[in-house]
Amino acid sequence: MADEPDSLVVGVDYGTLSGRAVVVRVRDGAELGTGVHAYRHGVIDRSLPATGQTLAPDWALQVPEDYLDVLRIAVPAAIVDAGVDPARVIGIGTDFTACTMVPTTEDGTPLCDLPELAGDPHAYVKLWRHHAAQPQADRINALARARGEKWLPRYGGLISSEWEFAKALQMLEEAPEVYAAMDRWVEAADWIVWRLTGEYVRNACSAGYKGMRQDGEYPAADFLAELDPAFADFVTEKLDQPIGRLGGRAGGLSAEAAAWTGLPQGIAVAVGNVDAHVTAPAAGAVEPGQLVAIMGTSTCHVLNGDTLREVPGMCGVVDGGIVDGLWGYEAGQSGVGDIFAWYVDHQVPESYHAQARERGLSVHELLTELAADQEVGEHGLIALDWHSGNRSVLVDHELSGMVLGQTLSTRPEDIYRALLEATAFGTRTIVETFTTAGVPVNELIVAGGLVRNSFLMQLYSDVLGLPLSIIRSAQGPALGSALHAAVAAGAHRDVRAAATAMGSVDRAVYRPRPAEAAAYNRLFAEYVALHDHFGRGGSDVMRRLRAMRRSAIESKEK
Amino acid sequence: MADEPDSLVVGVDYGTLSGRAVVVRVRDGAELGTGVHAYRHGVIDRSLPATGQTLAPDWALQVPEDYLDVLRIAVPAAIVDAGVDPARVIGIGTDFTACTMVPTTEDGTPLCDLPELAGDPHAYVKLWRHHAAQPQADRINALARARGEKWLPRYGGLISSEWEFAKALQMLEEAPEVYAAMDRWVEAADWIVWRLTGEYVRNACSAGYKGMRQDGEYPAADFLAELDPAFADFVTEKLDQPIGRLGGRAGGLSAEAAAWTGLPQGIAVAVGNVDAHVTAPAAGAVEPGQLVAIMGTSTCHVLNGDTLREVPGMCGVVDGGIVDGLWGYEAGQSGVGDIFAWYVDHQVPESYHAQARERGLSVHELLTELAADQEVGEHGLIALDWHSGNRSVLVDHELSGMVLGQTLSTRPEDIYRALLEATAFGTRTIVETFTTAGVPVNELIVAGGLVRNSFLMQLYSDVLGLPLSIIRSAQGPALGSALHAAVAAGAHRDVRAAATAMGSVDRAVYRPRPAEAAAYNRLFAEYVALHDHFGRGGSDVMRRLRAMRRSAIESKEK
Repeated sequence: MADEPDSLVVGVDYGTLSGRAVVVRVRDGAELGTGVHAYRHGVIDRSLPATGQTLAPDWALQVPEDYLDVLRIAVPAAIVDAGVDPARVIGIGTDFTACTMVPTTEDGTPLCDLPELAGDPHAYVKLWRHHAAQPQADRINALARARGEKWLPRYGGLISSEWEFAKALQMLEEAPEVYAAMDRWVEAADWIVWRLTGEYVRNACSAGYKGMRQDGEYPAADFLAELDPAFADFVTEKLDQPIGRLGGRAGGLSAEAAAWTGLPQGIAVAVGNVDAHVTAPAAGAVEPGQLVAIMGTSTCHVLNGDTLREVPGMCGVVDGGIVDGLWGYEAGQSGVGDIFAWYVDHQVPESYHAQARERGLSVHELLTELAADQEVGEHGLIALDWHSGNRSVLVDHELSGMVLGQTLSTRPEDIYRALLEATAFGTRTIVETFTTAGVPVNELIVAGGLVRNSFLMQLYSDVLGLPLSIIRSAQGPALGSALHAAVAAGAHRDVRAAATAMGSVDRAVYRPRPAEAAAYNRLFAEYVALHDHFGRGGSDVMRRLRAMRRSAIESKEK
Repeated sequence: MADEPDSLVVGVDYGTLSGRAVVVRVRDGAELGTGVHAYRHGVIDRSLPATGQTLAPDWALQVPEDYLDVLRIAVPAAIVDAGVDPARVIGIGTDFTACTMVPTTEDGTPLCDLPELAGDPHAYVKLWRHHAAQPQADRINALARARGEKWLPRYGGLISSEWEFAKALQMLEEAPEVYAAMDRWVEAADWIVWRLTGEYVRNACSAGYKGMRQDGEYPAADFLAELDPAFADFVTEKLDQPIGRLGGRAGGLSAEAAAWTGLPQGIAVAVGNVDAHVTAPAAGAVEPGQLVAIMGTSTCHVLNGDTLREVPGMCGVVDGGIVDGLWGYEAGQSGVGDIFAWYVDHQVPESYHAQARERGLSVHELLTELAADQEVGEHGLIALDWHSGNRSVLVDHELSGMVLGQTLSTRPEDIYRALLEATAFGTRTIVETFTTAGVPVNELIVAGGLVRNSFLMQLYSDVLGLPLSIIRSAQGPALGSALHAAVAAGAHRDVRAAATAMGSVDRAVYRPRPAEAAAYNRLFAEYVALHDHFGRGGSDVMRRLRAMRRSAIESKEK
């Protein structure tokens, strides 16, 4: 063994705008090389390139060929960057945004690649943030509530317009001819594995969280028929497929995919996965009680539990949804980093931008520095972090943001800090909801771009009263995919073992400081009161303001 | 008469930072010339010039000599600007900020002019916005409530730390030796008249609104003794003085003052007045039902009524407080233009400043233009205009501002518009409180710097559902003072007659538009709900945040 070079695996993370490949050493998770490729078509949300046809608001499409380009360009680039012999690679794993859906023919050909359908927006990939199926989601929710569907509580009582059924129903109703031409409705996470192996294996994670598959079953045909008679056989005709558990081997790398990537034909290809969920083992978080927060523009929380609980306002709970053998819980905050960015872009004056430039800082860094120089409560403010609505635990996208407590002495850094705090209070609300529902949380592990803000990290630790650990890898999802590839290749016994060997985290980098934690407890009590007043029926003003806004805009367009 | 040149009067308006003199034709109120002089010491709120001694927060002092310089410089400048013979001037009138207090010896010499006291801050003028007597005001209010003092409801149930008794009590308790050396505690409005005439006449307006003089009496000696035994004889020893009614003649211009001003010795000097109140007749508003709003950094509302009503949350009601023979009501919004200015200074990004510069607009103008291009309710926001607390009708300076409804699509002009609207809703709250209390309001007449924003004016008319008239003069208070001088000189029978001849207003420049008014009714309902929730006990979060802020700052200073 000593003379034999280390085995390698490749992980590929498909994000919203680009794909990233990383070459990883199986033994210890060392990241040896990276390649990135930005999708040529990016996100299509204004007009269809093929025809110039304008898309309605809330549409967001992609082109599947862009995903294959990542295999052709980013994977070889990562191998070159690592300076290794590709023959040493024993497996490849992938993760994807979700729920991102590809409509295909029986052999997996995307409908938008058929010349007769290339001009129809419904023939393209519907990206996770395609939000135009809200009317369909509303009807699914209303009917499920009315019928008391037992899967509904597994999704915190509300399914999203982003998910498989809502998007499919939209296609059926708006483009029945495209729906008829579609043989398979495929998660992009599984479509890319299908391209790599020639095998269509559906991963347990997407099927559970986005496909409402619970206890081995999808929503029943009579339920679907009540939504639309033509939708009755949707599951059997277009959706159902054998399920692969996470870390399983979907198949061997096909000759075609070997040619694209330069990797050896026949190596293990792991079952697909979702970007947030695959990050957990990359941070070594495979035990109950470890909440992994992937903090970027929004925050996704994943948490393993050893029992099934119905937690109000969660995104979902899925058997083996993160690690095979445990119940995987997912929660989310719709707006985090994007609220901070919105604030910097639209609410910070010239002088701050000038000062930041002069000092070689970003405006975020300057505001953070100024905000850090304050005692807890000194700004006199409290905010609600609902600028993008609230996913967990209120599941209400009619909600909106709020800042309270402004005086003529309030400075931009004060409100910035209040917004940072509000997102931490939002996370604490989620943690307390898990705990109350019987799913304990002992540790917060953070991944994602916001880990770089150490003031924010300490603030979260103080607000949550929890030790805060930081993932060591800067490319957590790609590392997680590589780790799954190693399991699929048989190099590690299971995902837990692989996480121990290849995942890595800096443990308890931040610990709650007693004085700050006590002061934040008082502010959090104010947050809870406002959260419940505006989010739980005390006042429906936010909902009414949204309605007024919509009708004002409509009356203007007439 | 035809060959005789028109008689002239001079009005002098003492503002916070400067004094403005205007030469006015008695016959028709034509403004012939203006002179302005900025106070050499401005507002002293950081350290005492004489000693460099640091002042505590909330202190705000002035130097009386600066007021005399206005007579020496601005009045002659106005005569020169008018190009008239000063011999034609038959009277001079003045108005002042209030409550601005001068501690003097028996002959009116300011204590700060005595070498032995020049180093004591308490020997200086306490400007209206000196807010360091809040503890004294709190005690006065608590005791008055406990004793059921009948004057308290005349002030909406709460007296201000800005007023005569609170400021005097602060001096007694913090600097008993200065208090002992003080023979007279004089409104600056009366002190300047004393300097002009050699006669100390106390004007009915200040005495009523700021000195709690009601039905001919001040708060009683036993009340004052209960505050502090040494305060028992404050009224008789230092405050009481014959009252001059508004428009009355205080005396003739003294030789000394004639030398300062270049005006003829012996001409009529009008009884002093307060800047807001003196503006009403300048706008021709001397009848019941005409609410005059002087809109600048804050807004002061004055309104005549023919009966006495106790109106909750008013600043005060005074017999002859605006026009002799009517009950003068005063209300106020603590923050209006200063909220807009705060927003522009601290919450508007670089790109807006650049665009405004490029187009030769102020940022206010740019934001207004962008905000104007919206339907009512389109921004989806609602704000509370309490950045400086709330004077009327809640009388609570622990309250603070709020903006609710932000999304990632919210733009700076949206929040700007929401703040404009919030101040209009604040005005509507005051108008409805008057109406409910039996003091009708039929017309809104606006004076002050904000009249230039026609979008704002239309918005107020729509929100209030009232025709909105605009004062024609750009220097309303100075014109109002000149008008009082004409009455004092006997050139007009009374203030009503002078207002008819010399005051001027453009009537119903803005009228409510039905569609906008209806939409604003819905937004106003939301404002009222939030106003009452946060301002009337539903939630005391603002108060608690203020307390946290204070203790955080204190703990930091230690």
